[in-house]
Parts: sequence; C-alpha cells; structure tokens
Amino acid sequence: MMPSSLLDGQLAPGVAFDNRGLSYGDGLFETVLIRGGKPLWLDEHLQRLAQGAHRLAIPCNLALVKRDCSRLLADLGPKDAILKITLTRGSVARGYSPLSADSHRIVSVSPTSPSSKEQWQEGVAIGLCNTKLARQPLLAGIKHLNRLEQVLAAGEMRRRGFVEGLVQDDAGKIIEATRSNVFIARAGSIVTPLLNDCGVDGIMRQQIILAAKRLGLKIKVAAVEMSALRNADEVFICNSVIGIWPVTKIECMHKHIGPLCRQLQREFESHFYA
Amino acid sequence: MMPSSLLDGQLAPGVAFDNRGLSYGDGLFETVLIRGGKPLWLDEHLQRLAQGAHRLAIPCNLALVKRDCSRLLADLGPKDAILKITLTRGSVARGYSPLSADSHRIVSVSPTSPSSKEQWQEGVAIGLCNTKLARQPLLAGIKHLNRLEQVLAAGEMRRRGFVEGLVQDDAGKIIEATRSNVFIARAGSIVTPLLNDCGVDGIMRQQIILAAKRLGLKIKVAAVEMSALRNADEVFICNSVIGIWPVTKIECMHKHIGPLCRQLQREFESHFYA
Repeated sequence: MMPSSLLDGQLAPGVAFDNRGLSYGDGLFETVLIRGGKPLWLDEHLQRLAQGAHRLAIPCNLALVKRDCSRLLADLGPKDAILKITLTRGSVARGYSPLSADSHRIVSVSPTSPSSKEQWQEGVAIGLCNTKLARQPLLAGIKHLNRLEQVLAAGEMRRRGFVEGLVQDDAGKIIEATRSNVFIARAGSIVTPLLNDCGVDGIMRQQIILAAKRLGLKIKVAAVEMSALRNADEVFICNSVIGIWPVTKIECMHKHIGPLCRQLQREFESHFYA
Repeated sequence: MMPSSLLDGQLAPGVAFDNRGLSYGDGLFETVLIRGGKPLWLDEHLQRLAQGAHRLAIPCNLALVKRDCSRLLADLGPKDAILKITLTRGSVARGYSPLSADSHRIVSVSPTSPSSKEQWQEGVAIGLCNTKLARQPLLAGIKHLNRLEQVLAAGEMRRRGFVEGLVQDDAGKIIEATRSNVFIARAGSIVTPLLNDCGVDGIMRQQIILAAKRLGLKIKVAAVEMSALRNADEVFICNSVIGIWPVTKIECMHKHIGPLCRQLQREFESHFYA
C-alpha cells in the first residue's frame, strides 16, 4: 500500500514537468513523524508551512492540506511512517515571475523503520562542514525547496563517514546541522543559534525552547561563534523525526552528554519511544 | 503536438514525487532558443550543463541528452520554439545526502511566439530589485534549480510594472538581472560583473565576451559597483532567448543606446531575427 501520495487531493504518480517546485524550487515542505498512526506536532508543522507560504506569497489552504493528511492517515492505520507535505506555487508560463494565484499541494506517506534508541542514548560523533550557508534573510527560517546547500553539506559528511555535521554561515557562525538544529549549553545556560540570516527554524527546536521555558531552564536564541561551541559543556542536535541526539564529538572536540540534554530528552521521550 | 517532453528518453507526463529536482532543487537546467527548427548554441548550453553537473557531482551523459534533443527537434520541424533541458540527481531515499549514482534528464519543447524586435531596437526601462542575492561561491555561475531569489526578484519587478530588473548581491554590487546578464560601457570600455559569488554565467554573456574580443573591443569581467552603473554611458542586458536589449532607463537613471551595444547587436542580429 505504501507509499501513497495525493496531488491536490487526488491519487497521482507525480507532478507535471512545469511544476514550479521542480523548475525553481518555488515551494515549501514539511516532514512529519507518524507514530502508531498519529502525527507528531502536525498543527505546528502546518503553521510553519503557512508562515513560509505567506513569506513567499504562495496561496496556502491549510484545510485542504489537513483533509489530505487525514485521508492518508486513515488508510495507513496504526503504523509508524513519515508524512511529507509539499506546497508549490502554481504554474502559469515559463519564467521566474510568480504570476499564479494558486498552488499545488502534495501529501505523501512513506514507511519508516522503527527508530533505534542507540543514538538518543549513546549520542553521536558529528563533523563540521566545509560547505557554508549563504546569508539570505528573505529565505531564512522557512523550510523552502531550495536545498542545494544542504545537499552539498550532507554529501561532504557522508563521504567523511559522519551521520550529521554542523554548518556555519559564511561569517563563521554556527547555524544548524545539515538536517537538524543545534543547542549548546555552558554553565547551566542553553543557547540555540539565531536564524535571521539562514537556517531552518525546526519544529523540534521550537518545542525544545518551549519545554526549556516550561522547566524554568535558562535558554536563549543568539549568535553562536565557534568559540562558544569549543567552550560548551553540552551539545545536542534535534529534529522532529529523530528527536534529540546528544553530541559526544565534533571533529576532534570531545563533549560529555550532560544533565540539560538528558532533562530535555525526558520531556520528549514518550513522543519518540513510547 | 507541442509541448512534448521526454523523461530519460521516454515520453512522459511528469516526474515522480521523489524526484530530487522537486524535493531539493537538486539539479540544473538550460533554456535553448530554437529558430526554424535549429537550436542556437546547443553545444555551449550542453557544456555549461556538464560543468554544473560536475560541480554538483550529478552524473551527466551528454550523448543521451543530445539524442533526446535531436528526437524532439526532428518532431518539431522548422519551427520556432524553446527547448528546455533539466538534469536532476537520481533518487535513492529520503534525505539530503546525494547518494545516487545516476540522474534523470528531462527534455521538453514548447511553442514560442515570434519575438517582437521592439525591445531590441527601442530598448527597455528596467528596475533595481530590493531582493539581494546571497553570496554562495559553491553555486555561483551554474544554472541550478534553486531559483527562489530570482522568483522573489521577478515578482517585485512584475508588481512594479518593469519587464526586467537589476539585482545586487548583499554587498551592493551589481550582479545581473533576474533572467539576464548585464553589461555596462564607459568611455569605450565594456564591463560585465564578476560572477564568483553569485549569478548565472549566461551563454549569451559568454558569446558577447567572445564577440567583443573578436571585434577588438575593450572588455573585462570585474566587480561592478552602483557608482559604475550611474556613470555608465551604455547599459544593456542579454540572454540566449531575448538576445541583447539596450537599457534606456534604470529606475530614474536615464541611459542612451550607444555604439557599443549597437555594434554587438549587429553581430548577433541574424541569430535572432534572420
């Protein structure tokens, strides 16, 4: 049965060649974890999708997206899966100009293997990418379809045998990892990079910030220099599919798995490993 | 009959949802003018495609691309059209990592209306975009599928009623226009912006540089500041579909159509208006 996909609410095998997602990356996407048939933070994902659509002036009807998601989830039953939602601007003619008053939505469900808890428990050794992120405030934060920088950075890490890697902007600030956000902690304070110039404002990142505030932890969003990474007591990465992975090593820099990471993991453990 | 499209050499209606061109803009494209059934500078376009593929490490078999082009052009007959070639990395699984050892090629032919010579003769008034180009040397020069900056810039110009607009990088240097390259001339010397950090190295731009050298004109590739634009005697824009358009006005800055632009236009006139 899986994977199954709906294009504008209809079962379909793919998109037309003139789809602007294909032509120009003119669109947005969300990747949602489904556990036992239930989507994790679907409303938050949809809200970010709507924010991105507003920024790019792509029409976005969330009610229709939700209807498509419900339909695929009803077919899925109580399984684990990944739900992917893509929204692209509608096509009118050749050319960059965003003339269209409509959009296309793609909703797909694909199988996922039950995630091992090993990395959550033991942590991961990650790299530092040579690929730098260009600073483009107009596109920062949103999860758009122009992801060549992530492809290049992920390729680098794969060639070097790392499961993930931190990425800096072209001024040398730490921004995120190739498919996850990063948090560092020092002397009881947690910091996650400011994403005003580049990077994706991840749903898991948002949830961790909320949880930290709820728990009364010191947390802030601020620029993170390499020196702060070097001096950090704890480093952890997150996204809404993997949850939170402690980082035990960045290139040659060793880090301990610390109490702040463990405290935050406990807040979310049931979502990922119930 | 038109438009007709080949995906990996087969007639097809579109691409699968997991195509990495759609998912991440992980690919490249070329837009080739067909006049009377004959492609203009096809070899040069294919060479740029191969260079971009090399940069992104996407497998590229030019012989197969050429074969697809020939097949569509044979069906077209002696007509005017636009040939579009897209190359995307092959899919393996979800995730940014460029694992695949293959690629997909899409070749399409679509009709075009005979181009009016008005803009070539009379010139165009263009704008200056607020959208700035981020500087990403890893992607500069090649014609990749991450084109959201151009979509935003073109949207701006469309809203303001301009047919085209110049785009600066985030340091304020003039780089190109939304779908064309730019040349400026002052006191008999021609300059076109350096594209080391951003911008597309257009085929028409390359042809103009070659022609200028052949004609013994003074031409160089260099950084172009706003002051150089203000002081320019002549400004013209180009791409391989429109040819060369003189610029008569940029926002409130008036420019004359000058002898260097006219001399270069004469070199290419037969290609576009024979």
